[in-house]
Amino acid sequence: MNVPGTVDVPVALLGYGTVGSAVHRLLEQSAGDIERATGHRLRVVRALVRDAARERPHATEDRLLTTDFAAIRDDPEIAVVAEVMGGVDETGERVLELLRAGKSVVSANKQLVARRGAELFAAASEHGVQLRFEASVCAAIPVIKVLREALVVSNVHRVLGIVNGTTNFVLGRMEAGAEYAEALAEAQRLGYAEADPTEDVAGLDAAAKMAILATVAFGSRVVPEDVETEGIEAVTAAEVATARALGFVVKLVGQATLVDGRFDVRVGPALVDRAHPLASVDGAFNAVMLQGDAIREITLEGPGAGGSETASAVVADMVSVIGTSGTGFLQNDACWRELERLEPGALASPFYLRLDVADRPGVLARVAATLSEHRVSVARLVQDPGEDGAVLHVVTHEAPAGAVEAALAQLEALEATRGRPRALRVISDRGVQGLGWA
Amino acid sequence: MNVPGTVDVPVALLGYGTVGSAVHRLLEQSAGDIERATGHRLRVVRALVRDAARERPHATEDRLLTTDFAAIRDDPEIAVVAEVMGGVDETGERVLELLRAGKSVVSANKQLVARRGAELFAAASEHGVQLRFEASVCAAIPVIKVLREALVVSNVHRVLGIVNGTTNFVLGRMEAGAEYAEALAEAQRLGYAEADPTEDVAGLDAAAKMAILATVAFGSRVVPEDVETEGIEAVTAAEVATARALGFVVKLVGQATLVDGRFDVRVGPALVDRAHPLASVDGAFNAVMLQGDAIREITLEGPGAGGSETASAVVADMVSVIGTSGTGFLQNDACWRELERLEPGALASPFYLRLDVADRPGVLARVAATLSEHRVSVARLVQDPGEDGAVLHVVTHEAPAGAVEAALAQLEALEATRGRPRALRVISDRGVQGLGWA
Repeated sequence: MNVPGTVDVPVALLGYGTVGSAVHRLLEQSAGDIERATGHRLRVVRALVRDAARERPHATEDRLLTTDFAAIRDDPEIAVVAEVMGGVDETGERVLELLRAGKSVVSANKQLVARRGAELFAAASEHGVQLRFEASVCAAIPVIKVLREALVVSNVHRVLGIVNGTTNFVLGRMEAGAEYAEALAEAQRLGYAEADPTEDVAGLDAAAKMAILATVAFGSRVVPEDVETEGIEAVTAAEVATARALGFVVKLVGQATLVDGRFDVRVGPALVDRAHPLASVDGAFNAVMLQGDAIREITLEGPGAGGSETASAVVADMVSVIGTSGTGFLQNDACWRELERLEPGALASPFYLRLDVADRPGVLARVAATLSEHRVSVARLVQDPGEDGAVLHVVTHEAPAGAVEAALAQLEALEATRGRPRALRVISDRGVQGLGWA
Repeated sequence: MNVPGTVDVPVALLGYGTVGSAVHRLLEQSAGDIERATGHRLRVVRALVRDAARERPHATEDRLLTTDFAAIRDDPEIAVVAEVMGGVDETGERVLELLRAGKSVVSANKQLVARRGAELFAAASEHGVQLRFEASVCAAIPVIKVLREALVVSNVHRVLGIVNGTTNFVLGRMEAGAEYAEALAEAQRLGYAEADPTEDVAGLDAAAKMAILATVAFGSRVVPEDVETEGIEAVTAAEVATARALGFVVKLVGQATLVDGRFDVRVGPALVDRAHPLASVDGAFNAVMLQGDAIREITLEGPGAGGSETASAVVADMVSVIGTSGTGFLQNDACWRELERLEPGALASPFYLRLDVADRPGVLARVAATLSEHRVSVARLVQDPGEDGAVLHVVTHEAPAGAVEAALAQLEALEATRGRPRALRVISDRGVQGLGWA
């Protein structure tokens, strides 16, 4: 179909690996859909690679592949460039050069956007072009578009997310009874986890995504170093089973919160109330819940990774660039204010605590008194027999993390306490009062 | 904050009731956010009402309220109009006049978009303006924006939705043990159901929303009359309990499917596999699952109604209009093809069947043989003692509805059968093979 007045739009790619070639293919396959929706025909005219001679199965066109970045930057015909090459330093400089040259950029690069987003947003705004980055967070789940365009008047003050599929798969297998090492090996076998799984299991991937989501939601620069991050390596099958018995599912939860104009962003294992929408996010899927004033909460769920999903998000962003005028929704710098970080320990939530103690008279009373001294109020308490003593499982009412930590430090110092007490956040939108023991 | 180069954008409202005045308030409250994001300042300059003298708490500005439609249509300054007055015939004519006058329109009117959408889309396209209607389906859940903009290259071929909060609340209460009448009375008491609940409980509200979603997803005109619709009035507490025992939750499910270039859109009670994302949608919440080629599936969940949620969607659409160039993403008619309806009975799915039969030798064999003759394959069968005979609960493998109906007609005619057999669709993305009896 050729719509009268169709505009031919030459575009370029930085990188032509799995995602880059998938973007090229999808643009070709969907040319009719895009033309019908926007009146524009997107045509890939250049793709930057390191070695143009290396065989690229899809790159049959003459002169498509180039090793000359300037051939893209200085081509006045090219209005939109998709960055699908990865890397932070050199890639960041190139993206800046493109923005300064008046080209809109679409990036799938989580680390680049998380680390240098503020600088890139400012450059895009200054030069009247767009920077879009849907694919950098949760692949085709359109959470960035929804935050920036649909929830523009919603004052989103909390973002909760399961934003790493690898850890969600591993914890799901542990929920079914597997030990951590066994579940991780299965994830590796199925291709859900890398040979070196650190980036995922240590929470670093999730932290980068939460930094991006917090930056966009709160309009203030949040970098991965601002994200208090804990991985799932210390989670045990026994802990998952205990959580299950208490009515919770253990998930790696990202949480960005705005409290009195200060932000708190964290990633860590948490006990999610079985009735909470995030509890049912299965396998390698991702979900992000956005809470705001006018909308209460909106949750988006879907596959958070995958070549075709990522390519689909890149193409949708390119279409959004050409479907919107000038800077589109990105008229001004996405980081329009400078918020401070909430002091450590200030963020309140319910907690699950586990203490191994000697099984003798007075210990329980001492534990209860210590928590009470720190104004940590107990919602539920279960005492199980331990190997050589007793195990106390405590679910608290909402309390600042600092108060919980102080109480735990004091409890750890007790003669009756064995080993380090464990504290995990509880995610429950009903408060813990309503929770029944399962 | 006044951004240099800010453009003042006069806008108008058709209607100034609950939603209209909420839109006005939200535009005023969010003026800074909108200006920062888009560089434009939206200012309500006119609101059409039937009687300008009637007191309107928020309408303090001089000359805001008018009974003269032409004052809006003919004001060259007004570029965007939000239709928040309801009605189909007269309102539709006014919206057409506005589009022809070169004004973009945002509508919150489900019945108008469902019944006259195709005509309105064509007029918008012809006159180079936008028609947006996010608030017409599931309030602030941005499913229309996601379908039209984020999934433009995804070939969405199936839309599954819980798009009516009233029935979802009622079925939730029945899940907890209440009878239908009792649950409905509670919904009415809490304001979730109208005094006359027909529109909701008969599935008509859901049918209008599914018609809109199918139209947008498939690019072809689908009107409410195309939607095969069944309400929840015949669902009993006993049926909900049986479903629960089989591992299902009864939900009012809207289902739009594209099969070999033909569409099938239906609304009706269905048994949703407890592991399916739609099974956990609670209370008055809505959720829509979009399945497509590149994206697998994306689910959006949130409150599907409410004054501030609806106003938020209307304002976001107005911002989208001014944030996009010309016709934005709506370059061409949203109904770009004319698909035919799938013949009745052709859509295959697993089914749950309930038969009341005489408890005597040979009956079970006869039932099994009849299903088999129609190539309806049994995945699970449970026989319970009935009041005066036996009750057979059958979950079938995937079968065309027509084959199931033909088998049931034959079974109903059996001398051993008491009353009408019942058939409900089963929603399970894993197929029913994997289902265990709970």
